Amino acid sequence: LPAEAAPSYVWVAELPDAGARIALSPEESHYLAHVCRARVGDPASGTDGRGGLATLRLTVVGGVVEARVESVERAAPTRTAWLLCGAPEGARSDWLVEKLAELGVAVLQPVDCRRGVWKAGRDRQERWRRLAVAALRQSRRRFLLEVREPLALTAALAAVDPGARRWIADPIGPRASCIQPPEHGASVGLVGPAAGLDQDERDEVVSLGHEPMSLGDGRLRVETAGLAWAAWWSAGAGGKSPKGPELR
Amino acid sequence: LPAEAAPSYVWVAELPDAGARIALSPEESHYLAHVCRARVGDPASGTDGRGGLATLRLTVVGGVVEARVESVERAAPTRTAWLLCGAPEGARSDWLVEKLAELGVAVLQPVDCRRGVWKAGRDRQERWRRLAVAALRQSRRRFLLEVREPLALTAALAAVDPGARRWIADPIGPRASCIQPPEHGASVGLVGPAAGLDQDERDEVVSLGHEPMSLGDGRLRVETAGLAWAAWWSAGAGGKSPKGPELR
Repeated sequence: LPAEAAPSYVWVAELPDAGARIALSPEESHYLAHVCRARVGDPASGTDGRGGLATLRLTVVGGVVEARVESVERAAPTRTAWLLCGAPEGARSDWLVEKLAELGVAVLQPVDCRRGVWKAGRDRQERWRRLAVAALRQSRRRFLLEVREPLALTAALAAVDPGARRWIADPIGPRASCIQPPEHGASVGLVGPAAGLDQDERDEVVSLGHEPMSLGDGRLRVETAGLAWAAWWSAGAGGKSPKGPELR
Repeated sequence: LPAEAAPSYVWVAELPDAGARIALSPEESHYLAHVCRARVGDPASGTDGRGGLATLRLTVVGGVVEARVESVERAAPTRTAWLLCGAPEGARSDWLVEKLAELGVAVLQPVDCRRGVWKAGRDRQERWRRLAVAALRQSRRRFLLEVREPLALTAALAAVDPGARRWIADPIGPRASCIQPPEHGASVGLVGPAAGLDQDERDEVVSLGHEPMSLGDGRLRVETAGLAWAAWWSAGAGGKSPKGPELR
């Protein structure tokens, strides 16, 4: 479906079953009323960002938009990606959040390392949530990027799915282009802070099974490496697979 | 060499042969004197962004930094990437420039299409040049990203190396993860504007040999698709190749 012909796509915190009526958040109401210029009676698609996807029919369009849920379909993810990410320099984390959400990453876990710690930011989590929701609408995804509070490296590593495949960005590792991204299950990428991991941290990460992966032939900024890893992972779904056509 | 131990890395518009003395631009002088806190007698690396790489010895550090060229090595690129890119929405092109430069793309050619035209921006080219130079320093590259003035699609396509391999971002194409990025020669990626190419434009592009490539399973913003393509290409160099260790 070309973008312009598809119904508007919004995020709904809780998606009740078919037949229920819901009121959208101020943010999503504004988006429908003023950006999409929706009218009463229009259809819309709504996702809860946890795999639920509903067909909605708008019943009230105003400061608050209300809708009737016509049908709901709920799905579990078949593949997920977590990015454990050291602190980028400056204000580069906002667009990292936006781009990871577009690329379908499930969790961004900021990690505090010996050579780099995330700075506290006022209203940061709320701003990141808004950016993630906007990217979810844009890319019409069913799973919302979750941006967690920063954790120390050891704690962040301990929170990862024990069955996940794990990588660490490393310029002397095998090339990403020679590693096939998993089509199923959990994948975890780790990118150190600008000054890198120290030897103890690196040993810890490698002992947990993170495999080195080179993302190119230059020194990448933290957020660029995080994004390149997510793009590598994202390219393992959608489009046609070698086994035949398999579109989303 | 860990970043902190390597000499400062600067861009020099013209790199004369060994023995010559050069004065750095105000921008690079500021970077050396105030960001790197360099002193007279310190070594530095200088590139002209066209493959030249020099060892410099600083002779004057002040408002203008001067240096003696101790040695120069000149190289031609073994692989290049051009991105032909439709207009992104809003002010998203600045970071696209920065990220493409980090990933080693040679040319960003903005393309004007029927459904999307690049907006003129005051001092845009100068700002993009500064961003590209900063990314070149950051990633210690020898080739500077060139950001060209926007061209109509047909003109942009005509300017491409006739021997280049060509792709077009297309959600129903084969997955990028199933396509090996070229290790040599010219590669060209094309990303349409937010509203897409129209059918005539698409036919034109395909008739010139651009092969479809899916970059993931979601709808990506223009700049995210451009960056995902560049990350795919970039992952085809550096690190270890399957033929054995081959580091930059």
